[in-house]
Amino acid sequence: MTRYAAVANRLGTLIERGALRAGDRLPSLRHTSRHDRVSLTTSLHAYALLESRGYIEARPQSGFFVRPEAIRSAPVPAAIRPQRAAVRIDLADLATGVLEAAQDLSLVPLGAACPSAALLPARKLARLASVEVRRAPVDANSYSFPPGRIELRREIARRAVDWGGALTPDEILVTCGATEAVSLALRAVTGPGDLVALEAPAYFGTLLLLETLGLRAVEVLTDPREGLHVPALAETLARHRVAAVVASPVCHNPLGATMPEAARRALVALLARHDVPLIEDDVYGDTHYDAERPAPAKAFDRHGGVLLCSSFSKVLAPGYRVGWLAAGRYQSRVARLQLASSLAHPTLPQLTVAAFLRSGGYDQFLRRMRTTYREQVARARDTVVRAFPDGTRITQPQGGFVLWVQPPGDVDAIAVASHARARGISVSPGPLFSASGGYRNWLRLNCAHVWTKRLDAAVATLGTIVRSA
Amino acid sequence: MTRYAAVANRLGTLIERGALRAGDRLPSLRHTSRHDRVSLTTSLHAYALLESRGYIEARPQSGFFVRPEAIRSAPVPAAIRPQRAAVRIDLADLATGVLEAAQDLSLVPLGAACPSAALLPARKLARLASVEVRRAPVDANSYSFPPGRIELRREIARRAVDWGGALTPDEILVTCGATEAVSLALRAVTGPGDLVALEAPAYFGTLLLLETLGLRAVEVLTDPREGLHVPALAETLARHRVAAVVASPVCHNPLGATMPEAARRALVALLARHDVPLIEDDVYGDTHYDAERPAPAKAFDRHGGVLLCSSFSKVLAPGYRVGWLAAGRYQSRVARLQLASSLAHPTLPQLTVAAFLRSGGYDQFLRRMRTTYREQVARARDTVVRAFPDGTRITQPQGGFVLWVQPPGDVDAIAVASHARARGISVSPGPLFSASGGYRNWLRLNCAHVWTKRLDAAVATLGTIVRSA
Repeated sequence: MTRYAAVANRLGTLIERGALRAGDRLPSLRHTSRHDRVSLTTSLHAYALLESRGYIEARPQSGFFVRPEAIRSAPVPAAIRPQRAAVRIDLADLATGVLEAAQDLSLVPLGAACPSAALLPARKLARLASVEVRRAPVDANSYSFPPGRIELRREIARRAVDWGGALTPDEILVTCGATEAVSLALRAVTGPGDLVALEAPAYFGTLLLLETLGLRAVEVLTDPREGLHVPALAETLARHRVAAVVASPVCHNPLGATMPEAARRALVALLARHDVPLIEDDVYGDTHYDAERPAPAKAFDRHGGVLLCSSFSKVLAPGYRVGWLAAGRYQSRVARLQLASSLAHPTLPQLTVAAFLRSGGYDQFLRRMRTTYREQVARARDTVVRAFPDGTRITQPQGGFVLWVQPPGDVDAIAVASHARARGISVSPGPLFSASGGYRNWLRLNCAHVWTKRLDAAVATLGTIVRSA
Repeated sequence: MTRYAAVANRLGTLIERGALRAGDRLPSLRHTSRHDRVSLTTSLHAYALLESRGYIEARPQSGFFVRPEAIRSAPVPAAIRPQRAAVRIDLADLATGVLEAAQDLSLVPLGAACPSAALLPARKLARLASVEVRRAPVDANSYSFPPGRIELRREIARRAVDWGGALTPDEILVTCGATEAVSLALRAVTGPGDLVALEAPAYFGTLLLLETLGLRAVEVLTDPREGLHVPALAETLARHRVAAVVASPVCHNPLGATMPEAARRALVALLARHDVPLIEDDVYGDTHYDAERPAPAKAFDRHGGVLLCSSFSKVLAPGYRVGWLAAGRYQSRVARLQLASSLAHPTLPQLTVAAFLRSGGYDQFLRRMRTTYREQVARARDTVVRAFPDGTRITQPQGGFVLWVQPPGDVDAIAVASHARARGISVSPGPLFSASGGYRNWLRLNCAHVWTKRLDAAVATLGTIVRSA
């Protein structure tokens, strides 16, 4: 972690725990610099980070103050101890509804976690696609069998070096988004009827996959700030015969949580001891809000037991469906499964994304995207705090672009989502993220779209629906 | 069937049965016109078709003669009665070798059934891709969730009218080639351990799929000219509990056979009576050599039990991976499986192929491709007849671009393929096409590439290898 993020986290914890209360003035920059033994500039960066996270605000000539709303009505949710029993899942209708809504442009898009196409470099991608296809029309019209185009795998391997990944192009399989990656990974390491351990809450796509593959799920305690609870997973492994773990240690969806580095290391070590593969869904990894990318668990894998799944869908190119899978010792098995189930991935999308990565400026672009997402999430959070009833719990994401919200009382999220849809708003109900029908009074809000008055109004409407539910 | 094709088939049968022998002069055009009650032009077309199929040759000033080689050494193979017992499959290494070879441009490409990129309209596709992506960059960078882009589904539905398909765009799911279509279809109608009836020989991609899905295969007698033998299938259904049938009634790979229309109707009726779904792999359907497209079995489906799988990979756009699935009463199930396993298909390839279909001239283009494939197959057949030992059996394809060849004696095709590879030639060994390790002395030759002296030489080398095997 960078120094300024460490300082911000220390102060953030003070605020969360009530040591610093609504309206309190923060220590001066000079005081913090002395206390944390950092430069004034580092302190200023830390305060800016806290501001973007919605904890504090700057008042001209007076300094930084704890924001009243953030404290009063938006405690970060506590981890919910999930049901222990292994359960079967059935969610496809709910998921289909949310994804269909994402394509209905008349709806306010707070449902599916689709990045706003308007924020993404669609024109640059289009230009590159056009250049690539005209440069090599015959090449673009030729099969790209597994593992996929070397131009792309080379760029992915190069970028993995940044987080300590010693991946070679040969260890990477190009996939149809992270979804195909997780699907192939699950098929490689499990068989029908097997038990898979998941975070709670978990991404509904993973739940859907388990259902269609005939797998059973067991949920593991997951902290809204620190992600998967490793001791709880150890307990699960002792109690159940688990075939695989699917988890998002960095920038979890819907929590926005990132496991501390020590926990990520402990996770990999625990699973290596039990010889249980980890399917790591890192699709939001590049959307973290820190200055430095938290390393995926794969970085600590010494035995090839981590199957790292990622894609460019959340920050760059959802329409091009370019994902990848580094499956460690399961690599030949996943390539074989892909050959059988889809034969090859379209060539032009691979060439286009490879050209984008090669063209330079991708890191700069990523920083901009991260800032944008962070700011939009902060704004959306503000709006929710104002619009929802007192006592509403809401996450403080460390990455990604969704908020996970629990209104007080006995609200039925599926009914809320249905009322919202009738009023032209798409939102994801909590049960979509549970292997056991849990989270019935939670909602997930997509904040990937440029925050406008239309979105403000939609959140206000949601608040009204929730209040009257 | 068109009239000239009917005339050609009548004469072709006479030649095959020995009523017309090597060197025999064919009836004059005038005689045939009177006999078949067709115009002189139609007779001329029929003779040209027979010539392109390698049955006859024109001698200046003398008329048309039965070609000696075609008769002497290339009988059409008889159907082999396959093993009856249900067997498990293991072929991935063999398949991977053949597909890897297809990407090694230093090898002579007689192995994988990849259309020659040089023959396909790569430049027009590139131009259209470029236009589409620049016209709608944001659209091209947005998710296309199942069932896929309406622009494309509309064109596919429109074309289905030609063969009597009453498909609406809603009944079509866009897939990653026919491979994903067959994969989804199999997953929708079977469960692990189920028994699937297949043609013998069968496309190795299907065998690979069965293996990875934990399915078992039972082979059904298949005629090299008339395809799947419906009475034999009836016997199989009586004997085994079959969960699904996978078949290619039109332009079978590797046989090039098309089931007569009556047999296609009987197939659909038989399976409807047994309530067994038919997964129809029609990927070569558009490559038939007749003037009119033989209708896929789906055309005779009244109960939604036929799952029609197709793609544009064999005639237009292998690199764009645009396939489709019309799954009848299983449509919502396949869409749900696709949502879970790949979420969405890339947008630009769909828009590009849709634009190509919309641009007009596709039928004319198809006619040209069919003529090209037919001529190349005829030439390749000639070369094989000359290069291989006497007694070699070889198919007379009615579509597609592969030849299925059985040298006489006890040749080990895997060894031949391996020797050929060492001499820079890729070829597909017979066992790749068997669920039971059969066809050990067969070879499949890809004839999709423009026939050159290099290919002639490669076939000559193959002949030498076969003779010394």
